[in-house]
Amino acid sequence: MPLTRISLRAGKPEAYRQAICDGLYRAMRETFDVPEDDLFMTISELDAANLHYGASYLGVARSDDLVLIQITVSNTRTVDQKKALFRRIAELLSKNPSIRSEDVFINLVEVAKENWSFGHGLAQYAGN
Amino acid sequence: MPLTRISLRAGKPEAYRQAICDGLYRAMRETFDVPEDDLFMTISELDAANLHYGASYLGVARSDDLVLIQITVSNTRTVDQKKALFRRIAELLSKNPSIRSEDVFINLVEVAKENWSFGHGLAQYAGN
Amino acid sequence: MPLTRISLRAGKPEAYRQAICDGLYRAMRETFDVPEDDLFMTISELDAANLHYGASYLGVARSDDLVLIQITVSNTRTVDQKKALFRRIAELLSKNPSIRSEDVFINLVEVAKENWSFGHGLAQYAGN
Repeated sequence: MPLTRISLRAGKPEAYRQAICDGLYRAMRETFDVPEDDLFMTISELDAANLHYGASYLGVARSDDLVLIQITVSNTRTVDQKKALFRRIAELLSKNPSIRSEDVFINLVEVAKENWSFGHGLAQYAGN
Repeated sequence: MPLTRISLRAGKPEAYRQAICDGLYRAMRETFDVPEDDLFMTISELDAANLHYGASYLGVARSDDLVLIQITVSNTRTVDQKKALFRRIAELLSKNPSIRSEDVFINLVEVAKENWSFGHGLAQYAGN
Repeated sequence: MPLTRISLRAGKPEAYRQAICDGLYRAMRETFDVPEDDLFMTISELDAANLHYGASYLGVARSDDLVLIQITVSNTRTVDQKKALFRRIAELLSKNPSIRSEDVFINLVEVAKENWSFGHGLAQYAGN
């Protein structure tokens, strides 16, 4: 169910962007109990003038390789699960495609379980 | 007040994209009591490498015609209204522009009524 | 921490878009107690066919210069702070880059404090 929006500077090869999606999916599977094939992600490639960031907020040294990740999910996870997700995403993206953990920005937006339709006009998580 | 973000593969004609907006607006009018002219929508056209989806999650057979629809609304609707919205969107988009209901993905993000400004720097729904 | 998504019609010069970001940042600093350098913003430039709006909803006369601003923030602000933010954004953007206040649309999405990671895979606002 997560709907993930990835924003980064334009110019990275397709394999690089694919690796980001792969890492996010794996991290969600491992820490958020996301089912197999539950993968919905968009990538926005932005010019420098359209991606603005604080280069040292909270003492983190960010670069133009910054990746902004906004994940909309159901509101069913604990704080510990969220911490585990963040940690795992940073670990996996630092391995492939070698993104510095300083450049991994993540935000979760939580919604009610009935706020999803995965096709057929049904609210698959709403129960009856 | 709904702010709607539509993401789909690049290459669809303008009339196709217009029909999606028309169907969404009509469905919101009918099921969410959205006032006339209360229509704010963006469309992102994405290359294949920038739109990732599970092709069979929950047994729904998705295709490259998948449309991801994320609607931010005030938190005033019932579960039944949400179900009615999802059903109506799928119905209307299947008529025009003939999108298979398998390819209609919808997510609602709910916010407080005071979280909107429709111009003039006012919070029009916040009361005084 | 705010993550801000700005959507507007394509074709505005870079200085115009920079002025929008500057005004938003300043308004957040002044009304939302946003710390220095806490600035994360994306801009989507859209063709006419991909940006739809009600031209007179609530009696506000909008034009093609409409700017849709969606700000995701922690859920720690009062209604008065939200009103002050909206007012200040409209004021500042009307000065520079001279956007009519009718064309400033703002939506806030609120999330829990632990829903942010600003790098290193940590949930910096979650406490221990």
